[in-house]
Amino acid sequence: MNCYSIAVLGAGSWGTALSLVLNSNNHSVNLWMRNKQQYTNISATGENTKYLPQIKIPSTINLFTDYIKAIENTDIILLTVPTQKVREVIQSIKPFIKPHQIIVNAAKGIEQKSQLRISQVIQEELPNQPYAVLSGPSHAEEAARNMPTTVVVASEKKSTAELVQEVFMTAQFRVYTNPDVAGVELGGALKNVIAFGAGIADGLGFGDNARAALMTRGIREIARLGNAMGANISTFAGLSGIGDLIVTCTSMHSRNRRAGILIGKGKNMEQTLQEIGMVVEGITTTNVAYELAIKYGIDMPITEEIYKVLYEGRNPRDAVANLMTRSRKHEMEEIVDTTNIDW
Amino acid sequence: MNCYSIAVLGAGSWGTALSLVLNSNNHSVNLWMRNKQQYTNISATGENTKYLPQIKIPSTINLFTDYIKAIENTDIILLTVPTQKVREVIQSIKPFIKPHQIIVNAAKGIEQKSQLRISQVIQEELPNQPYAVLSGPSHAEEAARNMPTTVVVASEKKSTAELVQEVFMTAQFRVYTNPDVAGVELGGALKNVIAFGAGIADGLGFGDNARAALMTRGIREIARLGNAMGANISTFAGLSGIGDLIVTCTSMHSRNRRAGILIGKGKNMEQTLQEIGMVVEGITTTNVAYELAIKYGIDMPITEEIYKVLYEGRNPRDAVANLMTRSRKHEMEEIVDTTNIDW
Repeated sequence: MNCYSIAVLGAGSWGTALSLVLNSNNHSVNLWMRNKQQYTNISATGENTKYLPQIKIPSTINLFTDYIKAIENTDIILLTVPTQKVREVIQSIKPFIKPHQIIVNAAKGIEQKSQLRISQVIQEELPNQPYAVLSGPSHAEEAARNMPTTVVVASEKKSTAELVQEVFMTAQFRVYTNPDVAGVELGGALKNVIAFGAGIADGLGFGDNARAALMTRGIREIARLGNAMGANISTFAGLSGIGDLIVTCTSMHSRNRRAGILIGKGKNMEQTLQEIGMVVEGITTTNVAYELAIKYGIDMPITEEIYKVLYEGRNPRDAVANLMTRSRKHEMEEIVDTTNIDW
Repeated sequence: MNCYSIAVLGAGSWGTALSLVLNSNNHSVNLWMRNKQQYTNISATGENTKYLPQIKIPSTINLFTDYIKAIENTDIILLTVPTQKVREVIQSIKPFIKPHQIIVNAAKGIEQKSQLRISQVIQEELPNQPYAVLSGPSHAEEAARNMPTTVVVASEKKSTAELVQEVFMTAQFRVYTNPDVAGVELGGALKNVIAFGAGIADGLGFGDNARAALMTRGIREIARLGNAMGANISTFAGLSGIGDLIVTCTSMHSRNRRAGILIGKGKNMEQTLQEIGMVVEGITTTNVAYELAIKYGIDMPITEEIYKVLYEGRNPRDAVANLMTRSRKHEMEEIVDTTNIDW
């Protein structure tokens, strides 16, 4: 196993957890954070008390608040900053990046103002930089505690994907490769819309049947949109699609799901955001997904109902009733060409 | 909405719940049970106290212990008897069935001795009878309580599928059609192997990441086997595949999952069966799936490990370690032909 040098930009729960995974693989890890107070805290306590409490950060992980020093002489720059901050971070480090440094993005989302995926944002800012996206069903807390976790790394270049796979793979952290960058990015971002919807169903007091149906039909409409945007349908049936959706919808770790539960219980968006007290990515993403569905002419009934609940004050119960009483459907008509089947 | 006459054979939780759905749609429902004691109880209490307690069975549902009378003059015969009993029931009613009566099977499993799907069993016994299978993410308790539920009906004949869809569809019970009988039957049967595996992971104390990975990779290997057996890959990404697996793996209603948890906690198969106290379909199905994988030459690492835990005494923790440390994989290599992709 070769050893690499990796700069991890962003010391939230996921950045910290991935630093631990990389450190356990004997790589050299530079963990960068903007916040000086956080730097002082982690240095003093050996713990990221705010984002990943009660997990020891070994002293072999180097801490930085200066990104120029953090990325210097590294092979890989891993981004774990919030999606809407990625462009800003990239613009800051741009003058200091070397052509061989691989950018790996592990944040999930779509840039709101441009409706671009992260790879497209980076493509605009650093057109020739090698790039991969890492995504999948992975609560940071579990990965940090060495509990079995699997993820997908996608890149347009096979050699890039395979190198990143080699760098991250441990006996507890299993990495699959995939050439479908668009599919992996869109699955990770759009699944939050459905997690939000699953939360609404839970909040309304519906059961496991309704939630499973929402997840199954939800990933399918995401796959339809993704396909129109250039992604491979089958990626959405993989770890970064349904896999990530399963983790998000069945856990109280997810802010998106928790926010949906509050909406389902009758709170409005303002009350919900106040109670969660943090950014709820799925609310922004629902807006983006709704606009993309119109732009690409894709029928996305679940996304549309969630959008109307969030932005037009539709009663959540009416939204579910609308979904259940749509005209009869053939399960596969939107994806599979059934013209050659004998019915 | 036309009204039909339906014989429901089997008064377990699912047969009773579907009788309630059909009754709410104003059909004439004949609910048959073999057990005279059960007949007396339901008649006296208006409730199926053993299998679906605390839910009122309206007197408009006709109860029978004589199957000849139950099926007489009906349009549809709905089977909800245990999989291993289907052939016996079909052989009993065979002399009394009319050619126009549609058999709808709602039991999930594979006939063990023949390794045949239920449609194939019925094809052997009643070669020209119209047939459909009904499957999907559907706890009986929730469907019986009018909680939103979606299912799939598959038939080789479109007109049969659409008629069954019309008969079952209500504002709370949404029915999709699908031409892929093999895919719907195999998804419903084989998902129990993975539910069992998810239970083992839970029993070992693993987290949401591991369970989501098992489910996602599990349905994928089932899809590979299904495809080799003539099913459509994309059916496994639908309600009767991943949808049903999600419901099964995230609920304590599932005996398969509960049994897996006990195995994961270190009990052996005998102790587990004793503690569950009922048939655990997934144990039989794991054996069948393992044999089918060999027969069709399909690589099914998860099924193989679960088989070895169940039948060869492999330590569950070693089984997970084996799965996590297999050689590096490309996510789609087994399904998607990547030879045309530029890597």
